[in-house]
Amino acid sequence: MTAKELYHTILSKKSYLCVGLDTDIRRIPAHLRAEPDPVAAFNRQIIEATAEYAVAYKPNIAFYEAQGPRGWESLQRTLEYIPKNCFTIADAKRGDIGNTSGLYARTFFDPASSGLEFDSVTVAPYMGRDSVEPFLEFADKWVILLALTSNAGSSDFQQLPVSDEKLYEKVIRTSQTWAGADRMMYVVGATRADELAHIRTIIPDHFLLVPGVGAQGGSLAEVSRYGLNSQCGLLVNASRSILYASGNTDFALRAADEARTLQQEMASFL
Amino acid sequence: MTAKELYHTILSKKSYLCVGLDTDIRRIPAHLRAEPDPVAAFNRQIIEATAEYAVAYKPNIAFYEAQGPRGWESLQRTLEYIPKNCFTIADAKRGDIGNTSGLYARTFFDPASSGLEFDSVTVAPYMGRDSVEPFLEFADKWVILLALTSNAGSSDFQQLPVSDEKLYEKVIRTSQTWAGADRMMYVVGATRADELAHIRTIIPDHFLLVPGVGAQGGSLAEVSRYGLNSQCGLLVNASRSILYASGNTDFALRAADEARTLQQEMASFL
Repeated sequence: MTAKELYHTILSKKSYLCVGLDTDIRRIPAHLRAEPDPVAAFNRQIIEATAEYAVAYKPNIAFYEAQGPRGWESLQRTLEYIPKNCFTIADAKRGDIGNTSGLYARTFFDPASSGLEFDSVTVAPYMGRDSVEPFLEFADKWVILLALTSNAGSSDFQQLPVSDEKLYEKVIRTSQTWAGADRMMYVVGATRADELAHIRTIIPDHFLLVPGVGAQGGSLAEVSRYGLNSQCGLLVNASRSILYASGNTDFALRAADEARTLQQEMASFL
Repeated sequence: MTAKELYHTILSKKSYLCVGLDTDIRRIPAHLRAEPDPVAAFNRQIIEATAEYAVAYKPNIAFYEAQGPRGWESLQRTLEYIPKNCFTIADAKRGDIGNTSGLYARTFFDPASSGLEFDSVTVAPYMGRDSVEPFLEFADKWVILLALTSNAGSSDFQQLPVSDEKLYEKVIRTSQTWAGADRMMYVVGATRADELAHIRTIIPDHFLLVPGVGAQGGSLAEVSRYGLNSQCGLLVNASRSILYASGNTDFALRAADEARTLQQEMASFL
């Protein structure tokens, strides 16, 4: 999916909501556990209930691979349920030496290899340029690079001063030379809304993937105030607050309510 | 496996060789491609041929997940072929916010969840302490943290000056407070043998996992000279030079030759 197509979807749905499919098999409502694939059955209902309000879906790969081979089958089925006009993100935080990153790229971008085809994958920057470039060799696919994450540990290294800037700023500046705003996005945690304005001075045009709204405590209003640009430029993720809005048979209805509330707030900011 | 048990195996085999099971289905000898699981069949012969000379095996997870669900089945079978006295490393380079890293830990350490149980997993440090700690909650399991990798991109961020040291040194120093030498190891690329002596001044007691010998150009003699400590403290990995020593029916014999050559050189340094 191109940036233009993504922006078109954002305008038509009046939303920049990304639904994080962090589906924990231990938290699926009891009535679904007898399904042949409870995770896929849960995701299907979540996707159908939220597709009107969401422009992107982001399965966190940990939740699937923790289930072994059947988890990867659940992931394949889940991707099939996501409408084609939605942007898909493999939240995998991969990164390795070049030939190995090339295999991770095939995992998430080459259905002939793995049975999966996402629009994008999240990548960790620690190993540098040649660990990221193999993901950029797939046309129309995106790298979403970790910059400033939403967890407490982001202060351990990402916030350290490197020359006259912080490490996460250096990651953003250096990676500008690897690809443009049409191929790369950045992860910036919503718990750091005060730093979004500063990040926007470095990368005014890029899309930012913002986790941390909802369960992690970030504010959608603040993120939108400091993060929006003329082409939207934001994908704001909510996971647990939508997936587990109810633990009963009404879980999909309640998920739709949560997604609609976020979408309506987003519509007011667009 | 404890550090003491690992050292015992090292002494008994006179080896600190780790065989990297970076098994690329496109490079498996033709006669194995009709097997029901060519990757597992290849790995089984490699393991049987090298087990006398190796103390550790390290499947790089990218090579398996690129094959989708059947790749994870090949990985499960491969683990079953590795002798119990060998140390197993899931080279996955994972890392995410706490609850998600907990799921990655279950992937590689909890067979009831994923069908896999490794002794250790490689972890990327960028997201900091709370992205690493969930892996340390499993008794007798190890975190192998990326410090200084063997690829060109390691100079992009790992070598940057942070206060009065480089980022990779800061990663090593900071992570000392997370766990001791009985639970953590570090990845230090063999292409940086000149920096091993310096790293040994920071962490004299830790095991270092050293990739990059062989296909990537590192020298076993230099690594051993600067990296060995009184309890060995090294696991030196070779992947492609062993796996693809021959592309024909004699591949396992030739792999054994390569492994034996490395083991004999190691025996001379121990």
